[in-house]
Amino acid sequence: MSQKKFRDKNQLYIIEGEKLVKELAGGKAGHDHRIKLLFATGDWIGQNQTELARSGIEAVEAGLSDIKRVSNLVTPPQVLALVNIPNPQFNEDELADTPVLAFESIRDPGNLGTIIRTADWFGIGHIICTPDSVDVYNPKVVQSTMGAIARVDVIYKDILQILNRPGIKKKAVYGTFLDGENIYETTLDKNPMILFGNESHGLSDRFDPYIRQRLSIPSFSTNGAGSESLNVASSVAVICSEIRR
Amino acid sequence: MSQKKFRDKNQLYIIEGEKLVKELAGGKAGHDHRIKLLFATGDWIGQNQTELARSGIEAVEAGLSDIKRVSNLVTPPQVLALVNIPNPQFNEDELADTPVLAFESIRDPGNLGTIIRTADWFGIGHIICTPDSVDVYNPKVVQSTMGAIARVDVIYKDILQILNRPGIKKKAVYGTFLDGENIYETTLDKNPMILFGNESHGLSDRFDPYIRQRLSIPSFSTNGAGSESLNVASSVAVICSEIRR
Repeated sequence: MSQKKFRDKNQLYIIEGEKLVKELAGGKAGHDHRIKLLFATGDWIGQNQTELARSGIEAVEAGLSDIKRVSNLVTPPQVLALVNIPNPQFNEDELADTPVLAFESIRDPGNLGTIIRTADWFGIGHIICTPDSVDVYNPKVVQSTMGAIARVDVIYKDILQILNRPGIKKKAVYGTFLDGENIYETTLDKNPMILFGNESHGLSDRFDPYIRQRLSIPSFSTNGAGSESLNVASSVAVICSEIRR
Repeated sequence: MSQKKFRDKNQLYIIEGEKLVKELAGGKAGHDHRIKLLFATGDWIGQNQTELARSGIEAVEAGLSDIKRVSNLVTPPQVLALVNIPNPQFNEDELADTPVLAFESIRDPGNLGTIIRTADWFGIGHIICTPDSVDVYNPKVVQSTMGAIARVDVIYKDILQILNRPGIKKKAVYGTFLDGENIYETTLDKNPMILFGNESHGLSDRFDPYIRQRLSIPSFSTNGAGSESLNVASSVAVICSEIRR
């Protein structure tokens, strides 16, 4: 399940640890992320019998050494589970009245996971990634969402295709750049689509014709010798905050 | 150099990859982060002879297989270097008129690295970590700062000790909590000290007597079933943005 080909074949992804399992087993998760099968130590199953019975989740007892073989964590957890991979579809109406985050070739699993967690915090439920981006069901992405993966829909599509849909053409499309307009001096649309580029190369120019406004988070580095850029997950946090504040 | 005991003994830390090496070798770095020794492939040394001669940095030719043995990256770089560990000290005057970020028991190297990069972007040069926090010269921290490590001073000290200094007592001290006042409805001091808690446990109550205001980034999750918290590096990005905007 840690490898994409197994995830694709079985349409299941792995979650690890009590916190994540309880969040997805309980009412907080989206309906489409159902736990299919749970592996846990006898101790854990004993302590959680009531919840397991209520949820109807099938639990298989496993030794810590078995869990360790499957686990991607440094310290194997008491419990891990296999979860159905949902197949979210975004229709145009759905995208029209809500902020949408779109990522070109995002590569770092920790970044994508943190971004999903941030989007959830700011009530943003729609993320689009170009197909060459890191897989959202990669275990590192999943774990760093801290459960938000079940509440934020992520689809893999060519962003240009979506930008070309008639219903989207009315949307305020922002691109994030190092040389854009100062976000603090711009009145932002409340339901924009915001494009973020790859960690190393930024946004490619094929999106230029669709971008209504180029935005930047200005640097306050005093000596003009500061960092070249913000981390993409940090940029997402700042921009989501600006839209919602 | 990847282990803390070696770093402590030799007072050197490791940086990997051309981008980081060039940033610390060039004028952009702080003076205290001097490259002591550089290991690179013959190709790399050949291509960078002029810069090496100008900088006066001693370069040792190494094969990729040698570099691989020392490297912490999945793909070993063409160049890595050992850098002097500086010994920053914060005096009270220095802390009085600038924002300061303080972290209790921060544990994740990627978080601390991203925070240093964000602090640099927002022109914040002073970070305090409690001594049980992750080491700033841990290779994962260093790499994720993208060079900002040379421009932001990080000290390890009991935060209470600093809060007790007479010069600091006048400072606006904010704590970040899940149940604090909405940061968007608060007029923030421009040069506060902001306390952030551990990734799992938040801020402990021993800081309560020193905190002027408890702050929160409000959640905009629509169904009241959102994430329990924001990632600490994302929170730092939002709060730095609020102070500087």
